[in-house]
Amino acid sequence: MRLAVPMLALALALPSTVQARETRIPQTAVKQATQLRDTAMQDDTGWQVLESLTTEVGHRMPGTEHDARGVAWAKAKFKALGYDRVWTQDATFPLWIRRSESARVVGPHSQALAVTALGGSPGGTVEAEVVRFDSMDALKAMADGSLKGKILFVDVVMANYGVGSRIRRDGPREAIRTGASAFVMRSAGTDWHRNPHTGMALSPTVQGAVPSAALANPDADQLARLAKRGPTTLHLALDCGFNGSYTSQNVIGEITGRSRPKEIVAIAAHLDSWDLGTGAVDDGIGIATTMATGALIKKAGLRPARTIRVIAFANEEQGYAGGRVYAESMKNDVASHAIVAESDSGVGLIETLGGQWHADADPAMQQVADVLAPLGIQYTPHKGGAESEMELLEAMGVAAGYLGREGEHYFDLHHTPDDTLDKVDPKSLRQNVAAYTAWTWMVANADGGFGSAPKPAEAKK
Amino acid sequence: MRLAVPMLALALALPSTVQARETRIPQTAVKQATQLRDTAMQDDTGWQVLESLTTEVGHRMPGTEHDARGVAWAKAKFKALGYDRVWTQDATFPLWIRRSESARVVGPHSQALAVTALGGSPGGTVEAEVVRFDSMDALKAMADGSLKGKILFVDVVMANYGVGSRIRRDGPREAIRTGASAFVMRSAGTDWHRNPHTGMALSPTVQGAVPSAALANPDADQLARLAKRGPTTLHLALDCGFNGSYTSQNVIGEITGRSRPKEIVAIAAHLDSWDLGTGAVDDGIGIATTMATGALIKKAGLRPARTIRVIAFANEEQGYAGGRVYAESMKNDVASHAIVAESDSGVGLIETLGGQWHADADPAMQQVADVLAPLGIQYTPHKGGAESEMELLEAMGVAAGYLGREGEHYFDLHHTPDDTLDKVDPKSLRQNVAAYTAWTWMVANADGGFGSAPKPAEAKK
Repeated sequence: MRLAVPMLALALALPSTVQARETRIPQTAVKQATQLRDTAMQDDTGWQVLESLTTEVGHRMPGTEHDARGVAWAKAKFKALGYDRVWTQDATFPLWIRRSESARVVGPHSQALAVTALGGSPGGTVEAEVVRFDSMDALKAMADGSLKGKILFVDVVMANYGVGSRIRRDGPREAIRTGASAFVMRSAGTDWHRNPHTGMALSPTVQGAVPSAALANPDADQLARLAKRGPTTLHLALDCGFNGSYTSQNVIGEITGRSRPKEIVAIAAHLDSWDLGTGAVDDGIGIATTMATGALIKKAGLRPARTIRVIAFANEEQGYAGGRVYAESMKNDVASHAIVAESDSGVGLIETLGGQWHADADPAMQQVADVLAPLGIQYTPHKGGAESEMELLEAMGVAAGYLGREGEHYFDLHHTPDDTLDKVDPKSLRQNVAAYTAWTWMVANADGGFGSAPKPAEAKK
Repeated sequence: MRLAVPMLALALALPSTVQARETRIPQTAVKQATQLRDTAMQDDTGWQVLESLTTEVGHRMPGTEHDARGVAWAKAKFKALGYDRVWTQDATFPLWIRRSESARVVGPHSQALAVTALGGSPGGTVEAEVVRFDSMDALKAMADGSLKGKILFVDVVMANYGVGSRIRRDGPREAIRTGASAFVMRSAGTDWHRNPHTGMALSPTVQGAVPSAALANPDADQLARLAKRGPTTLHLALDCGFNGSYTSQNVIGEITGRSRPKEIVAIAAHLDSWDLGTGAVDDGIGIATTMATGALIKKAGLRPARTIRVIAFANEEQGYAGGRVYAESMKNDVASHAIVAESDSGVGLIETLGGQWHADADPAMQQVADVLAPLGIQYTPHKGGAESEMELLEAMGVAAGYLGREGEHYFDLHHTPDDTLDKVDPKSLRQNVAAYTAWTWMVANADGGFGSAPKPAEAKK
């Protein structure tokens, strides 16, 4: 997911010595990209990868046995797909475990509600009166300690994910401030099924955290109706919490460059997922799209000028653990990455091609755009940027591509039990793979770069 | 739900002494029905009833504490809505309890699957290899005892509810016959959410029953994919089962007839529901529609010629327990019921007016049809018949009305956690109430009957 779009244009205004001429894609590479694109539209490698991951591994919750199975699967899959080199990079993070969760209204209207613990929540059983707020402003106006012994219920229908994820982050902190015994929120999601939406809320460094959970939208409706009738008591039982640390791995597959092997085009996705569904959409689609990209290039018997690196990141969901390790590992060699992209924007067709690069590379990007146009992809130069972990690289000064998917139904599924393979349209996935394959092939063969360079010190502040 | 349409036309061909002339609705009653219809389209009594039931009581699983709360709620609500007389009728049935249920694939692809016990299933924990069948014919071709020690998995995508409910009934019996240790089926449902669909499968009289459950459609997909990869072991743990008997109540509200109080027009729905959702659609809509019908007539200060009886039946879901008691109670007085209807056909607009009555009442039904036509209701005379419990009365010789709803999304929600209030459109519910109110008012004021009479002995065979 991309939540913020740093404006890198200024940062990428590099000394002319670094980028002496316009960047262009050789005609041979453009023709090959066109062929790769058309082949991808008839090829089901992406689907096979996604089917394999979600069926054989299921979810890839960080720190669980599924996480380890996911890493083993990714290593084996990269090899099976013909990547030249496969390796891993350790990423250690606080281990958060979910064992069980339940909520029920007690009293004359007793009934069970569909609930899930928010990531990072401590465990605990709380039975207390619910105090409902229909805005964060109203909650923030409450005095410190004023909800002592109550369950704080933030009931805001999600206008957009920025707002929803902010409530998920700020709500549990407001519960601490106001002295509430527990926190429940209306899910940050757009569906009206009995699916609560999980997501990261708390880190182990937060002092005094209380059990924190999300209700499915229909259940938030129900609790709101009951709370309007009079004092309403909720029994919330979460068995979850942090327990030491865990070391997972980024899994990386490479196709070694022909003429400039030390220059890297990196495309990424995150291997981990939440545990409620099978992480087919978030981010199985990304894993399938990027893994298939290298596979199709290998299958075509092609070798790029630059090295193509496909990264399956560990633990994006709980705070970019794998992304931070990767960014740290190349912080002294920012310019080694010619351009990067991440596929973590959901389900459906890719609709836009954008990103952040030096203007000298505009001619090359126009060539890329021309090849992607028949896929229904609109060119939006210098708009958007890298998603998720690759935002960390972009922030360090690496040029970034953005292949933006339609997002209409993404937050119906995001972080819910419903994130399963049936939600993915194989035809859309082919288009995703076609776009990534053509994009990757062209930028990996471009004569000239895209403006990656360490950000000036002042820009880092 | 109406699954079969008995052809009653012949049964209703009565001696001419019973029905000497054509049945017609007095013009005053037609005008009043038109006014009631238009008032109902602006009135939210139905919604208020539905909101109250699903919020305050939640589900009404037979034999649970919610069942008793539902009965108390219905008695109080009938009185609050101004019904002249409210009483209950005991209905005793075997008590089936659901405590918990879970399923997971074990082994290298271990993962949890979304499952629900089928009604009547015994409890038990079984861990065994899955044997998948993609048709009932293939299963029926298996020799007795040939699945000994296996878990039988019937994986048929539901073509229609007749087929789906038949698998739910026959599958557990095939498991017994073939010696399987447990039975799982793809849910009888049309949605692709992580919602397993429950429903009645077994009675306490079935000998040798084994744990029987339904998987959500995405989970049935998953188990099928795994089973195709090789031997797959499922761990199924159901804590449920029969435990003695329970006595619930039909709750009946009446508006006493003005001139022919012993002649009854009965409209019904079932008060009970499954426990996974809140029974908003199945059959909260029916309860709301029929209760609001009498309420609107009382609110208008009107009194019908015949008595209008609104019946909230106990335990439809596990085998018409309340319906059987009611039918038994009037078996010697079949002709007392001029005509009956039940509202148990789901969510959405009423689209057709049909039913089964003597041809002498065609003029009256045409008058009814003319008043319902502006609601978008098509007249389909002598087609369809009573739904659910009222089929029992129709089979005894009572004339039956059928107000058929659109059914497109009904089996997305039916018997799942997703059967909640948010799925009901208040505007559609108004139309439902308008149709029932106008229909009920007109048939309750018709001069002449609809042909109800005990079936000749030979027709009962």
